[in-house]
Amino acid sequence: MRKVIFGGASSLDNYFAREDGSVDWLIMDAEAMELMRGMLDRFDVMIMGRKTWSASMANFSEEELRKAEEMSNGMRSVVFSRTLEPGRSGGYEIVNTDPGEFVRDLKEQDGKDICVMGGGELARELFEAGMIDEVGFNIHPLLLGSGIPIFHRMSRQIDLELLECRPMKNGCVYVLYGVKN
Amino acid sequence: MRKVIFGGASSLDNYFAREDGSVDWLIMDAEAMELMRGMLDRFDVMIMGRKTWSASMANFSEEELRKAEEMSNGMRSVVFSRTLEPGRSGGYEIVNTDPGEFVRDLKEQDGKDICVMGGGELARELFEAGMIDEVGFNIHPLLLGSGIPIFHRMSRQIDLELLECRPMKNGCVYVLYGVKN
Repeated sequence: MRKVIFGGASSLDNYFAREDGSVDWLIMDAEAMELMRGMLDRFDVMIMGRKTWSASMANFSEEELRKAEEMSNGMRSVVFSRTLEPGRSGGYEIVNTDPGEFVRDLKEQDGKDICVMGGGELARELFEAGMIDEVGFNIHPLLLGSGIPIFHRMSRQIDLELLECRPMKNGCVYVLYGVKN
Repeated sequence: MRKVIFGGASSLDNYFAREDGSVDWLIMDAEAMELMRGMLDRFDVMIMGRKTWSASMANFSEEELRKAEEMSNGMRSVVFSRTLEPGRSGGYEIVNTDPGEFVRDLKEQDGKDICVMGGGELARELFEAGMIDEVGFNIHPLLLGSGIPIFHRMSRQIDLELLECRPMKNGCVYVLYGVKN
């Protein structure tokens, strides 16, 4: 069965973006881009919450948007929202169904793995529903001090198994864990 | 000049203890004990906030207390508190002075490095005062879901430099960073 991976870039103090959604602190050098490309290769669906979607769209530069689009070529991109009208918006599918149910259905279909991006509210819902199989972060060498947290409070502990740990020349540490369900 | 290191064990979701202060999830196997012993060797002062002190005292088993005492043999242990009476309590020095000033003085004295343990409120004060030189955590393979955070909100970003990254057989990842002040 295809796997669901919650991942992205984070600061050491557990933030995914600054309070205003900006990710200007992300290291986008050749080493980081190679890691990202390698990760993206295993996915054909990317899902995210509305806030992550708005934040990334609003804050990426033209150049970053172009790179992101280039890398996600052919990827199905789904945005969960309780406020937006369901439909399509610039390559994105806006849906308002229950994320747990949606992902459960998706996992039963054939395909590559599924990436859950960014802000932790959607991830929390999927963790609580037992839908996340792996957690992978590229921990950046900084404390943002404040921002949008990766991990939100959950009603239970999730045990993990370290699958990979790769310190990089640029000071990032990439870690990949399996979720012990 | 002697260095100030903020460190300890953490969960991947940035907690240092469960909400009730318990640390029953800590891996205390031979590999972890060896790492801890190696770290403790560089220190001769350990400082912590009152909450961390109360939590660790209240939650360690007799056996864990014995091990901790054995390992911290000869270490000066300082507890910052605004509520407790200054003085001595079972090997600990209780002080109510300003942590930034206290640590600034301490750094000017001869000695080994200084360890800032546990809960992040004291660490935040020391980060804000520019007193922390290194950050070292043994990231445990789990999401606690809730608890006492390692890193609290700060008024500014702190840039770090990765000095060491050591994935361990037990699934922990030990990371050590230098603070770029």
